[in-house]
Parts: sequence; structure tokens; C-alpha cells
Amino acid sequence: MSGSTFGSLFRVTNFGESHGPAIGCVVDGCPPGMTLSEADIQPELDRRRPGTSRHVTQRNEADQVEILSGVFEGKTTGTPICLLIRNTDQRSKDYGNILDTFRPGHADYTYWRKYGLRDPRGGGRSSARLTAPMVGAGAIARKWLREQHGVSFSGHLTQLGDIAVPFESLDHVGENPFFAANRSDIARLEAYMDELRKAGDSCGARIAVAAHGVPPGWGEPLYDKLDADIAYAMMGINAVKGVEIGSGFGCVTERGTTHGDALLPDGFASNHAGGVLGGISTGQDITVSIAIKPTSSIRSPRPSIDRAGQPTVVETFGRHDPCVGIRATPIAEAMLALVLIDHALRHRAQCGDVEIPLAPLPASSRLAGDAGG
Amino acid sequence: MSGSTFGSLFRVTNFGESHGPAIGCVVDGCPPGMTLSEADIQPELDRRRPGTSRHVTQRNEADQVEILSGVFEGKTTGTPICLLIRNTDQRSKDYGNILDTFRPGHADYTYWRKYGLRDPRGGGRSSARLTAPMVGAGAIARKWLREQHGVSFSGHLTQLGDIAVPFESLDHVGENPFFAANRSDIARLEAYMDELRKAGDSCGARIAVAAHGVPPGWGEPLYDKLDADIAYAMMGINAVKGVEIGSGFGCVTERGTTHGDALLPDGFASNHAGGVLGGISTGQDITVSIAIKPTSSIRSPRPSIDRAGQPTVVETFGRHDPCVGIRATPIAEAMLALVLIDHALRHRAQCGDVEIPLAPLPASSRLAGDAGG
Amino acid sequence: MSGSTFGSLFRVTNFGESHGPAIGCVVDGCPPGMTLSEADIQPELDRRRPGTSRHVTQRNEADQVEILSGVFEGKTTGTPICLLIRNTDQRSKDYGNILDTFRPGHADYTYWRKYGLRDPRGGGRSSARLTAPMVGAGAIARKWLREQHGVSFSGHLTQLGDIAVPFESLDHVGENPFFAANRSDIARLEAYMDELRKAGDSCGARIAVAAHGVPPGWGEPLYDKLDADIAYAMMGINAVKGVEIGSGFGCVTERGTTHGDALLPDGFASNHAGGVLGGISTGQDITVSIAIKPTSSIRSPRPSIDRAGQPTVVETFGRHDPCVGIRATPIAEAMLALVLIDHALRHRAQCGDVEIPLAPLPASSRLAGDAGG
Amino acid sequence: MSGSTFGSLFRVTNFGESHGPAIGCVVDGCPPGMTLSEADIQPELDRRRPGTSRHVTQRNEADQVEILSGVFEGKTTGTPICLLIRNTDQRSKDYGNILDTFRPGHADYTYWRKYGLRDPRGGGRSSARLTAPMVGAGAIARKWLREQHGVSFSGHLTQLGDIAVPFESLDHVGENPFFAANRSDIARLEAYMDELRKAGDSCGARIAVAAHGVPPGWGEPLYDKLDADIAYAMMGINAVKGVEIGSGFGCVTERGTTHGDALLPDGFASNHAGGVLGGISTGQDITVSIAIKPTSSIRSPRPSIDRAGQPTVVETFGRHDPCVGIRATPIAEAMLALVLIDHALRHRAQCGDVEIPLAPLPASSRLAGDAGG
Repeated sequence: MSGSTFGSLFRVTNFGESHGPAIGCVVDGCPPGMTLSEADIQPELDRRRPGTSRHVTQRNEADQVEILSGVFEGKTTGTPICLLIRNTDQRSKDYGNILDTFRPGHADYTYWRKYGLRDPRGGGRSSARLTAPMVGAGAIARKWLREQHGVSFSGHLTQLGDIAVPFESLDHVGENPFFAANRSDIARLEAYMDELRKAGDSCGARIAVAAHGVPPGWGEPLYDKLDADIAYAMMGINAVKGVEIGSGFGCVTERGTTHGDALLPDGFASNHAGGVLGGISTGQDITVSIAIKPTSSIRSPRPSIDRAGQPTVVETFGRHDPCVGIRATPIAEAMLALVLIDHALRHRAQCGDVEIPLAPLPASSRLAGDAGG
Repeated sequence: MSGSTFGSLFRVTNFGESHGPAIGCVVDGCPPGMTLSEADIQPELDRRRPGTSRHVTQRNEADQVEILSGVFEGKTTGTPICLLIRNTDQRSKDYGNILDTFRPGHADYTYWRKYGLRDPRGGGRSSARLTAPMVGAGAIARKWLREQHGVSFSGHLTQLGDIAVPFESLDHVGENPFFAANRSDIARLEAYMDELRKAGDSCGARIAVAAHGVPPGWGEPLYDKLDADIAYAMMGINAVKGVEIGSGFGCVTERGTTHGDALLPDGFASNHAGGVLGGISTGQDITVSIAIKPTSSIRSPRPSIDRAGQPTVVETFGRHDPCVGIRATPIAEAMLALVLIDHALRHRAQCGDVEIPLAPLPASSRLAGDAGG
Repeated sequence: MSGSTFGSLFRVTNFGESHGPAIGCVVDGCPPGMTLSEADIQPELDRRRPGTSRHVTQRNEADQVEILSGVFEGKTTGTPICLLIRNTDQRSKDYGNILDTFRPGHADYTYWRKYGLRDPRGGGRSSARLTAPMVGAGAIARKWLREQHGVSFSGHLTQLGDIAVPFESLDHVGENPFFAANRSDIARLEAYMDELRKAGDSCGARIAVAAHGVPPGWGEPLYDKLDADIAYAMMGINAVKGVEIGSGFGCVTERGTTHGDALLPDGFASNHAGGVLGGISTGQDITVSIAIKPTSSIRSPRPSIDRAGQPTVVETFGRHDPCVGIRATPIAEAMLALVLIDHALRHRAQCGDVEIPLAPLPASSRLAGDAGG
Repeated sequence: MSGSTFGSLFRVTNFGESHGPAIGCVVDGCPPGMTLSEADIQPELDRRRPGTSRHVTQRNEADQVEILSGVFEGKTTGTPICLLIRNTDQRSKDYGNILDTFRPGHADYTYWRKYGLRDPRGGGRSSARLTAPMVGAGAIARKWLREQHGVSFSGHLTQLGDIAVPFESLDHVGENPFFAANRSDIARLEAYMDELRKAGDSCGARIAVAAHGVPPGWGEPLYDKLDADIAYAMMGINAVKGVEIGSGFGCVTERGTTHGDALLPDGFASNHAGGVLGGISTGQDITVSIAIKPTSSIRSPRPSIDRAGQPTVVETFGRHDPCVGIRATPIAEAMLALVLIDHALRHRAQCGDVEIPLAPLPASSRLAGDAGG
């Protein structure tokens, strides 16, 4: 199947380019009867949108979403929901010089080798701008998961370049432009970013996201394991190079005696599993951590080649995020929500009448502490 | 769609349980006209099979594969290829006590919460034994990729519990039971495993795999990025908790000026990207690293609960791998091959007639050195 | 997977309702490098659009299509193409009385029983208006099939209610409002429709469509046979109740000696197969015939029930086609094109390198005569 | 996606060739907890199996089914169910002469043009023998539909070549080798077949099948309409050339005033719709009629060409059904069941929590009379 559709039952088909007339998506398979309007979606888009601080791209997009279908008198009808976001602040001339050369670390080269041509304006389809429709679709998923199952999401920046960001409280995430669960170190992060921007360079980041209140039983044994689908979703976000569930790479040096989370009558004793065992949710928090690479569009001149294979030097102007990780938290939360609603529906399809003789553990033994730690 | 099928054009549907009569898979969509027999598949199964050293499970399975369909007079016909592997060395009584309780870190609990019942014999469907059909299907994929595109695969253990395994040469991988690209430290690894086994405990591992000779252009912009599908495939292998492409989590502390691989007239100057940019292959080695958790079936007694929610203690007898990572290398290679053949066919479908005006880089600028390092 | 996506490699995701702000579709998987603009699509939409004669609905929609993505400097980029058609002539008040009752023969009742609510304005999602995006997507498919493979399409009305419409020439199809391949009987058809409209009633129709120049080898043995996918596509058009390939139901009374089309050195001697054998194209014309039921929205009063199950009488006002079959020809051609491009890409994916040792028959032994007769 | 998988949530992947070692299928997505053993499946296979009368192929296959996975202690576990049927009575030498030539009306030619090679033994993959796994999977679907929803199936032969077979009672269907719902005309049918066989010829047939007790609400608006998926399923059965739902082609000459089934407080007044409106089930019987072409493998000599394109004459020996329609009834019932279970699960996925404020009609207003008439 073609690549631009995410999910099997709650399906999101994404379209658009950074500097085309519009971006958007079609959400097919949404359960009927849920109240929905643009007001449910816009706040999530606003969390992600550019131009909100000096540390992100200065492109000014309102990212105003319009629902074109699938809602009647304020309720979902069960038919496809088309979300449309018009692009309004394109400056395509900024990108003219990119057409003939390739930015190191950018998809310029691979698109050209795949398709034989590419839309160079603002990165075209490879732009992180295309995460906006994901966030829009994710807002629909989050609403349904919250209303039907009490599932909620959280996320925050855990590292910015060389700086680890200590977890203080999720309450702080909305108070700073970095989505840091921290109040003490914000000035340090701002200074770091200011210096980086002056140097014409970019940096990587690490993000933790979690889903709370997921019931046990969502997922499939193989291959569509819940964690496999989460890995697919996360690695599919622009610039992500690594994904961990639960203790992630930390499990390499753990022992079976310590890694396996003991089941006690009042819940699991720990959550090294990150809420997934054998591809199926345990009822604990789903915890995920991702690595985001440094932006490839930077001002610093770098050696490259042109389309004829001749050596050249690339400098990228235009407006870019010096760290795409800064705005990645709501995107990762949205993708996690899309995976979960899909598996919620899949589980209801196959196991909608399963009754568990005895339910040994509280519905969700939600552990306190750092999401995705 | 149901979960047991992998791939969109080269589709592998996996079936079976650890202690049922047989395991296997149906491979649909294989191109016609390729010479194929059991002799092409058995060697890969033999690399994975249990019972070959004292460091893995002592279950003795020949893992003899039978081709039931899709091959006529030694050539693939283009119709589904069914691979059948009979189970021969089940000892289901070993697992009797597991039915009523749940091993910490095991899928026992989640299967029961999903389906309301489970096959407890040898882990049933959640057993790592089900990776055998993946390896079988992967052998078909590898053959086609090699013959049609010159693609080859390599992989090795890079860490065993606390012990990092230095890369010496890929030549050593077949010479030791650990798939270590190393000759100097094998005695140390053996001693480590002997001690672990005596302690009734288990450990994690880290594996690196790579594909060499992949042409540029395979993959999709979103969501079915080549790296997203690789992450899905890897996280879908039993016990995997983390996946990295290229520099992986290392990219968090890299800068744009160093992470972006410069394009020079004679090829890329480095491979931080791990062979994928914007979800599409660059022509460089595809490099992947995965984290594998410690086996959850261990002899050491651990607190747990029974089906009535009452506290109990679990000890696991039966035959188990003290480190499932030891046999994971051929599995990860197989899954990588399955992702690549699927994208090779998808690329041919959409872009089979694309001509690149000028091809600036050598077909594959294969970098020397450690695969997936 | 959710239901609003058609095709596996050339995927069309349809959205919208009759009286919502817009209808449209996302076409994913289109090969890159094809010249494309609205001017390639609009003529097909114009063939289908309402209000063009007194024999069809008087709703006046320009059906002006806008390409929102996937095209750069006049060429397809290989990324999703979003087609948007704004609704402009809604008169939703016409349908107010339908909300509480159910038209016999209409989807009113089933939508309500499925979703628990429905958009009653103009039939909402069940309106034949939703065939416009199919026709738009079909225009893209037709262009690619013509340019890459020389495939063309034809179609015409073969029966209107009680009146069989003799085939005279395909040249006449564009000259009358009925898509009849006939010049002699048009006045008779007009009189028939005028009388029907006066009576407040509606009638059925039969349409024949054909694809010419399809190369042999497209299709799959099972289940995704070329003819099975055609049947799915045709039965999916609003109001279709029957589908035939080749001699269709006529084959019941044929013998093996007469039905089987002899292969002669200069081509097939006949085409009872309708261009498909064993689910795979033969190289002959693909011929299809469909039955379209009478419109269910008619002025004549009929017994029905309201939402409380109480008896009532339904009369339908608003603007409707007295025979939806009249405008069905371009829709059926479009759906046939969508099936064929999908199988063209699928065939290239799996068999792109197959060489036929000897090709016994001319590439297409195109038979003269009545398409789908 | 590749072609050999049927269904989206209850997925059946078919494999095997007529004269290979085995045929079978993998059923993925079956709900857990249903009692299931070979004894539930074998009777349906026995209804379809060859060699049971002189009017069908004399190949003697026991069609003994073995469940290889997905069942534990007599209950489905929710994991893939592999059904295996060993071929036992192959006589491949019978088909030696077919390798170099092409039977008129057979898939010989198209397979060769698609794949460049083919398995000629018994028709290979194109053999009607591959309907056995469909029937096996259908038996599982039927059991679930019956137990969960009270859905039942019926079917019968309505025409054999030139002879229309009047409906007398469904009770007669199991009493004669033709699946005729008739007792009076059996001798006539036998004489007709005896003569045909002597003449070395074959004939077509028409079959009616129905599903009883289907609740309203199953299906999708577009494209995966319930009737569209039924058409796909039926046209995918070997030799089918036409499909009708409800009044089918009869609707062409019906009027809106007569075709639309009136809703009365005690149920629908008629069933021209065949139980589907707008792609969604109404709660009435689902009625389907299919046309099956004459067998292409006949003794009578016919003109054809060889692989070099030279004229030749083809006579088919081996064992064949002189009318494949005779054994088609259980196959069509099975395919209908597979469509319905898939839509039952899809409906539960999306609408599992929908409550209908008032249910105006009795759950199923089952009409008396001829199924699919």
C-alpha cells in the first residue's frame, strides 16, 4: 500500500507540501457520535505551530484548521473527516538555490534519486511542516481515548544538545518554549540556543512521552505489536533516529531478576517494560523516548555536490528551527495517540466480547514520576 | 488488518505456537522465476536454531523447513510460498505450573488480559521460536536482493550484558556461538554466560546489523519511511526494547555541522544517517542497532500473583535462553531483508520508469568498518 | 482497514458529504514525472456533472476541481495529490423532513442503524455526488494508462428502463445527454424520461464500459483477481445491483466448446472472457456491464415508518436524477481506470523484470464492435 | 498488497497448487474463546469435495483438514489458525501436453504472460481445487456468525446449462449431487449431464446463495460497501462471470415505485435490495446470484496455439468437472460468510458502542421463500 496513510482502522492519510496551497489529512474510521469541532483540534496545533518564540523558525503560520467533512451538527458521523490547513506565509524564493544542490543530512538528495524530480520549496513534502496534520488527527484520537477510556498523554524534553534537562514537574511543560518539565534551567537552555543560532549551527534533542490509563490488552502478538507500531510511528517523525520503550537501551545491562517487573496484588512494582509485554499493553504507563537529530538546514557553509556531481558549497538561508526537537513533544504525543486509538479499535474488533474471569490488578497501576524516564 | 502479516507487497503471514504441531509462514508476492529450494533457506534457519551451544536453550529442534507451494521445477512461480517447520521436541509438561501464574517481564499476563485465555506451553505464540519462520522468509528475501541488486547483510553482537564486544572483523562472526565480530574476548563471554546460568539469571544484549549495496531511492516520505518500517520490524522482534538508525541516540549531542554527512564527488564523507534520509535510502550502508532485554523465563524465584490476584512466587523451569540476544543476529538480519525487499518492490511499482538525469554519486559508496557501529 | 480508500498502490481516499463545505479525494501512489493540471481533470468532471440537461438533477454545481498538493511546476512529484471540489449549490432545507423518516430503497435507514445518527442533507455521504472525486481520480489514472500503455476507455448506455438502446457508434456517445451510442432513438429516450419525470417516478439502466489496449498479465490469481476487483469497483458505485464481465450471465447457457475463446496466430477468435482469464488480463478488451437500480428519491408518495417505528408516508422533494444511470457512464469508466492502474503498478512491482520467451499473440488483438456488449 | 489474502480483519491467506504437496490457508484475526476442532470444518469440506458423484471430477481427494495452530484445548486463542490439506491423488502426467499449449477459456495463457512460467499440473494455482481452503476458512466464519449473531446460510443451483431448476424446498439441497432445491427434476438434470459428458463438452450454471439473520448496520458507505465486497468475493471464485445482489439485473426494468422496499412497522414489505442499501445491511436476507461459465478443460478438440505462436489443436484429458457450477454452492456460501464476518468485526471496531435510540423494525424481518431468487 502507498505510504501516506497511517493506521489500519483509524486511518490518517496525509497530504501537502511546505509551500503548496495547503496541507491536511483525511481521518477515516473515527467512531460516530463524538462531539467534535475545530475548537477541539486548534489548541494542539497551536502547541506545535512555528513562530512562537525566537528559538524556533520565524515562519508565521496561523495553522488554522478547517473541518471539511465527517461532522454533522457538532458530532462525528463515522465518515471521513478531512482537515484542511492553508499555507499562508510561504517565501519560496528563499529556496531557489537549493534546487541544484543537496543539503548534507537532508532529504534533498534522496527525493531526487527516488522520483527524478522534487519540490524544493521549503523542503516540499519532507518538511517538518507536514507534522501539523498528524497533530490535528492526533487531537481527534486523544479526545476519543480520553472520553472512552480515560487515557491521557504527557511529554517533555529530556535533553537539548549537550544539556540534560532534569525532570521537576509536568506542570512546567507549558510554561517554557522548550516543553521542558523544568523551571530552574530554562535560562540556561535559552542561552544555549542563542549561542547555537549565532553560530549558524543546530543541535539534537531527546524527548520522553507517555500515555496514562491505557487498559491492558491492546496490541497484537506479532508483527503489529503495540511497541512495534509505536516504534514505526516515532521513527516516522521527521529527524528521529532512535526509539526506546520502557528502559530501552538501558535493558542491555539489566538482569532478568531486575528488569522483569514484579506483579503484586496492588499492581506492578516497577515499569521497566514501559507498559508493553509481548506486544500487548500491561495497563501501566506506556513510556517512550526518542532521539532527534540536529536540523540539516543550517547557515554554516558545508561541502556538497550539485546535480552534475561537481563539488560545491551549501549554505541554507530561509527560516528554520535550529533544533527541531523543541517542537517535537506535541508531535510525539499525537503519534502515540494515533497508535493507541488504532489498537483500541482493533482490540474491540477481535476481542470485544472477551471477559476476563478475574482481573488481578487494578485497572491501571499508574506509577508516579517522570514520563518515559 | 490483522497483525500476523508483515509487509505490503512481499507479505509474510506467520503462524504457529511453540508447542503446537508446527510453525511456519506464507510468503506472498515473491517475484517469479527465481531458483529456490529448501537448500536456500535451511542454512539461515540453522544459524538461528536452538541447541547449538551450552549458552542457548537446550531444546533440540532440527528446524527442518518444507516448501509446500509456490515453487515449480525449482523456480518461484509468483504464487504464495508456504514454509512449514514441524515442532519435534516439545515438553509441554515443563510448563504446567505457568498456567495459573504470570512470569514477571513475560507476555503471560498480557495475553491473558487480551484474549481471556492463552496457550501456556513454551510461551505459546509469544515464544521466540516464532522467529524461525521470519528467518525462513528472510532467506528468500536475501536471495532475491542479492541476485537482483547485489545487496548483502551483516550483523554481530556488540554488547553482552555488561561486556562491550569490540569489533575486530566480520570474519569472526560465524566462528563463535555469540555472533561476535571478535576473536580475542570469546573466553570472557563464555565465562560470563556460565556464571549467569549458574546464578539462574539472564542478561540483555545489543546487536548491530547492516545492509550493504542498497541502491538510493527505496522508501517513502511518510509514513512508511524506510527507517520507520525498519523500526517497526526490529521492535517487533521478541524482547527488543530500543532501535537506532545510524548514529541513533548519539545524534542528540551532535551538531548539524558534524551530523550531516557531506556529499563529495566520490561519495558521502561519513554515514551518521545510517543510509536513510527523509525516509529514503541514500545508497550507503543501512546501519541499525537494537537493544534486547534479559530473558524473562529464569530459574530465580520472583514475587508474582496468580490468576485470582493472590501473591505467589514464580520459578521458571523448562529450557530457555539465558540471553535471547545471542541468537538474535540472524533474526535481525532477516527482518531487515524483509523490509528492504518490500520497499524494493514498492519502489519499482511507483518509480519503475524514473530516470535520474545525472547520477552524481557512485552507486554505493560503501564505507569500511563496523556495521551499525 | 477503513472503507473510504480504494486501491492498494494507486490509492484514492474519498471524503465529503453532499451538502458539506466540500468533497474531494487524496490520490496516493501516483507515479512521478507525469504532466498534470486541473485542465486534465476538469473535462471528465464536466461529463459527470449535474444540471446539464432536463433529464438529470437540476442542482447546479460547477464541480470546479483544485489540486492542493502533489504537483510541482506542472508535474506529479510522486507524493499525494489532493483534489478539492467546493460544494456551492446546497439547499439543505429541502431535506428537512427526511431526518425523521426513511425513503424506501434509500440508505437513510441503514446509516441510521449503523452509526446511530446521519447527515440527512442531500443524502449526506450516500449521495451520488460522491462519485465526482472518483471521476477526478479516474482522470489521473486514465492519463497515466494512456501515456504509459496506450490504454483507452469507452462506455455507453445500453438500456434505459424498458428501452434497449441499440449500438450504432461510439461517436454518438458525446452527442446526447444519455451517453447512448445511438443517434436514431434519442427522441424516444427523451420522451420516455419526460413521461417518467411527470409521473414522479424513476427507472433503472444498464451501462457497458470497456478498456482497450490493456496488456496481458495484469491481475492476480486469487483473491485480487482483475475481474474480482472490477466487480468490487462497479458494485461500489451508487445504485449498482449487478456486474458482468464478458458474456456475464449469458455464460450460463453457453457450452465449453463455444464459450472458450480460441487462440489463433493472429489473436483471439472471440471475447466471451471479457479480457480476463483466471483473474489476469488476456490482452483483449476488458468488457463490463452493470445494472443500475431506479433512484430511490422520488416524488410519488410511498408507505414507510418514522424513527419511532410508526407508519407514515414519504414523498421526496429536492432535486434528484430520475435515472442515476444516465450519468453513470463516466463514473464506471473512471472506476475501471482506477482498478487498472492499480494492477498495472502491482504487476510492475512483482513482475517488472519478467521476460516472456515468445509472445504468440499481437500485443492486443482488439476486436471491433460494441464495448461490453 | 499481494493478492492471496482475503479480508481486512478476519484475514484468510490462501496457498497451494492443485498438484503440489498440500493446499491450505492461514486464518488471522479469529476472535478468541470459540470452540473449534477439525470436526467443525470437515463437513463443509465434504460438501465441496470431488469424486462424490459421476457428475463431477473423478479425482479422489479426502480433503482431510489439519489444524496446525491457533487452537488450544479446543478453543481458538485469537492467534492465526493454519489449515492444512494434503494433496493425495495427483496424476500429473495427465497434464504433460498442456505445458506447451493453451486451453481456450483457461488461465494457461494469462499465467504464462504474467509470470513467464507456470505450474501446469492440474491447473496449478488456477485450479478450482484452491476453493477448498476457502470453504475451510468459511466454516470457521460460519460457526462464529451462527454462535454470536444467529446468522445462517443457504444456497442452491437455480440453473444448469439450459435447464432452469425450479425452487421447491431448501430441504432437498443435500439430497442430490447438484445442490438443487428441487426433487422433481433431478433425473432430468442427471440425463443432461450424462449427455454432456458423452459429448466431451461442458456447461455453465447459476447459483443463488443467501445469508439469514444478518443484523442491520454491517458494511461501509464507500468503497468497502457490503455489496461491493460480496461482488469481489463472488467474482473471485473460479469461473464466475456475473454477480447480482437482490433483484440484480432485473432492476433495470423496475421503477422506483416498485423497486424500493417499503418499510412497515412489522418489517420490510419486500426485498428487492437483497438486504443491502447504501452498502450497509438492512437486516433482511442478503441475497446473491452468480453466473458460472462452462469448464474450459474439455475433451473436445479445439483450435489453439503453442508457445511459439504456431497453430495447434488442444484436447484436454485428465479429470475435470463438466460443470464447475455443480460444486459451487458451498463455495459461494463460504465466501459470503467470509465477507460477513469481516464486516461484523469492522462494525464492532468502529461502532461497538453505538446505541440506536429506537429500533423501528424487528431485528430481522426474514422473508419466506427462495434464497437469492
